[in-house]
Amino acid sequence: MERNATKAAAMTDTTAADELKAAIEAMGVRARAAARLLAVAPAKRKSAALRVAADRLRAATQDLLDANAADVAFAVDSGNSAAMVDRTRLDPKRIDAIARGLEDVAALPDPVGSILQGWTRPNGLLISRVAVPIGVIGIIYEARPNVTADAGALCIKSGNAAILRGGQESFLSSQVIVAAMRGALAANDLPEDAIQLIPTRERAAVGHLLAMHQHVDTIVPRGGRSLIERVMKESRIPVIAHLEGLCHTYIHESADIEMARKVTMNAKMRRVSVCGATETLLVDRAAAPTHLPAILEDLFAAGCEIRGDGDVQKLDRRVVPAVEADWTTEYLDAILAVKIVDGIDAAIDHVNAYGSHHTDAIVAGDPAAAEAFLARVDSAIVLHNASTQYADGAEFGFGAEIGISTGRLPPRGPVGAEQLTTYKYVVRGAGQTRP
Amino acid sequence: MERNATKAAAMTDTTAADELKAAIEAMGVRARAAARLLAVAPAKRKSAALRVAADRLRAATQDLLDANAADVAFAVDSGNSAAMVDRTRLDPKRIDAIARGLEDVAALPDPVGSILQGWTRPNGLLISRVAVPIGVIGIIYEARPNVTADAGALCIKSGNAAILRGGQESFLSSQVIVAAMRGALAANDLPEDAIQLIPTRERAAVGHLLAMHQHVDTIVPRGGRSLIERVMKESRIPVIAHLEGLCHTYIHESADIEMARKVTMNAKMRRVSVCGATETLLVDRAAAPTHLPAILEDLFAAGCEIRGDGDVQKLDRRVVPAVEADWTTEYLDAILAVKIVDGIDAAIDHVNAYGSHHTDAIVAGDPAAAEAFLARVDSAIVLHNASTQYADGAEFGFGAEIGISTGRLPPRGPVGAEQLTTYKYVVRGAGQTRP
Repeated sequence: MERNATKAAAMTDTTAADELKAAIEAMGVRARAAARLLAVAPAKRKSAALRVAADRLRAATQDLLDANAADVAFAVDSGNSAAMVDRTRLDPKRIDAIARGLEDVAALPDPVGSILQGWTRPNGLLISRVAVPIGVIGIIYEARPNVTADAGALCIKSGNAAILRGGQESFLSSQVIVAAMRGALAANDLPEDAIQLIPTRERAAVGHLLAMHQHVDTIVPRGGRSLIERVMKESRIPVIAHLEGLCHTYIHESADIEMARKVTMNAKMRRVSVCGATETLLVDRAAAPTHLPAILEDLFAAGCEIRGDGDVQKLDRRVVPAVEADWTTEYLDAILAVKIVDGIDAAIDHVNAYGSHHTDAIVAGDPAAAEAFLARVDSAIVLHNASTQYADGAEFGFGAEIGISTGRLPPRGPVGAEQLTTYKYVVRGAGQTRP
Repeated sequence: MERNATKAAAMTDTTAADELKAAIEAMGVRARAAARLLAVAPAKRKSAALRVAADRLRAATQDLLDANAADVAFAVDSGNSAAMVDRTRLDPKRIDAIARGLEDVAALPDPVGSILQGWTRPNGLLISRVAVPIGVIGIIYEARPNVTADAGALCIKSGNAAILRGGQESFLSSQVIVAAMRGALAANDLPEDAIQLIPTRERAAVGHLLAMHQHVDTIVPRGGRSLIERVMKESRIPVIAHLEGLCHTYIHESADIEMARKVTMNAKMRRVSVCGATETLLVDRAAAPTHLPAILEDLFAAGCEIRGDGDVQKLDRRVVPAVEADWTTEYLDAILAVKIVDGIDAAIDHVNAYGSHHTDAIVAGDPAAAEAFLARVDSAIVLHNASTQYADGAEFGFGAEIGISTGRLPPRGPVGAEQLTTYKYVVRGAGQTRP
């Protein structure tokens, strides 16, 4: 009898697992159908839906606060850190900011249908490369209910259907946000299934999403390294990944000292927790005695810890010895690794070997050195005489961004609405046949 | 004693497996170093190397014929079909064609360094999106020694390092071709490791290549469905896949009858074995009595088998009944599936549901119908009043192509030298710091 009970329990588990898989697949089928409709929807209707979503979200403020209170309680019960709980928490001001975010995306130019290139062949065929939505995008992210609105809005703007898998800690808040957006889509005669939220906190749902390559065209993971690595490992679907920002600033010997001080301080200390924050400073041996003392002084005064190689330690006794791991650590904190290098080739080699191909900058007066760095550093964003903290879609003029892709294939760098499109070739003829 | 011998054999196997893995990884490391150099090599030097490679290949004609004779013997011994053996076989004319292919790629415009877009931000930052090589490309293909030269040449042209895994049947021929190309690179002061051939027929080598995501940036499989599916399943590296060409031609009721006949005949029968050959013909119910009889007559006269739905069977007794599988079969043969549809929406739905998102065409006089088809059919290439057999890089003006990508993310459609590049953002400032 006991054996039978175990068997029955196992069967129930299997049934539940099958049901979850079927439910996720049904979401994929609905997303594909919605994507086909949204791909050819007029730009005006999509932006109207985003503005209506903002209105509905503001009108739902009390519902959202109630849902969020339950989310916060869940986050606390799950033993999350105070910082994590704070990221989950909404208040009327934050809700208004989310609504404004939707309106900002509504105001962006519509990327769908742009003719990226067009040419006529000798046989008279007219060929155009036209921007079209990618299709169905799966977005997997942690905590922060605002990502639900931001990511969903960018997908709608770019004509894609989104399947969202939010953090467990913002599950109920995300449901309210998605309901407002779905309602706004329907009210504008657009398919509400263009935004769907996975309706369970079960972890297995992510596995089903990552396996569904026939219904999902790309996966965007947003979160910590372990989430992104899991997604890259498990996914049978192309991933647009933002791995980490191990950014460098390199001070060439030709750098203006004042500019080097100002740019380094901003690159490290403006905000230490963003992916564009510089984590390693490289300084030419020739510039170390002239430039580095003042730079270090600035950083110490601002409360930054410096971990340096032997040569850097000699310059200032407050410098902590750097170990090998320091050259590959994204601190996201007021800590900077500093290394003396023997000229530009050594600097470029270091960045390419230890960096994360995200964002790297050179400060230099010599244009030849600058051009060599810009050409040979193999990163999504390379800068000359500017702070690495400009690594941001809004600073590029893209409006909102869903992240910064560190992959090599397109989209690379900041991923905004335009980068969530792909292209197709449209060929117009007059009855041509191929000889 | 026997047990010990088995153990020793197992250890030897393990050692051999480890050695193979290490050898493939060492190729990856060399490829990355070569890619860094080739990425910034002058255009002239790359095209000179390709021309020298053509000269060296012609000079090596006898060596190549000898190697190829051994390959052909291997292919026969392995029990390959006569067609497969023929695809392996080289003669002086085919060798000259391979050399001319290298010269053609040399003459193409260099895609590296093009400024795809440039703009200035209100803060004075100058941002450019610049075409750069992808990096290291792994190419896995079957038989046909010419692919070794074509694919390698496109990689060199686009500044990428190639790791080639050719078919077992062309292993020795490919070695001679690669040796000529490596020599030509070295003679032009370019890194010879920009082209490497996996130096073994062992199948396990492919697994190591597909796992090496730290050294290889993209995988291009060229071959049959089983090869491509294996690669897509196993690869931890983004894949540029050419899955299959299940292409449609749709005859709208507004189509000119003569144009419909001519385009359909060419789309199906010009060459039946290419991926751009039409496999399914869709005809509007309203056009069936007027257009279809003549189209079928042409096809029967050319020796084409017709598999039709019930309505098509009624039109001509030579029509074989179509079964469900016919709508999803890439025949690559003189066989055409024909279906009557109720207007453009049904046609578009059929193409999106059964097609492979490769290439699809509409024949129509009505511009509104044409634009609806072009906008709503979700394929890499969509054509109006032209043959699907134009699905080809050379016909698009790209010169040579490595294949036609059926994925949704870029590169989509014909993949030539330009499509083997990605981009990075180059930002030029004057000391800007982010507020």
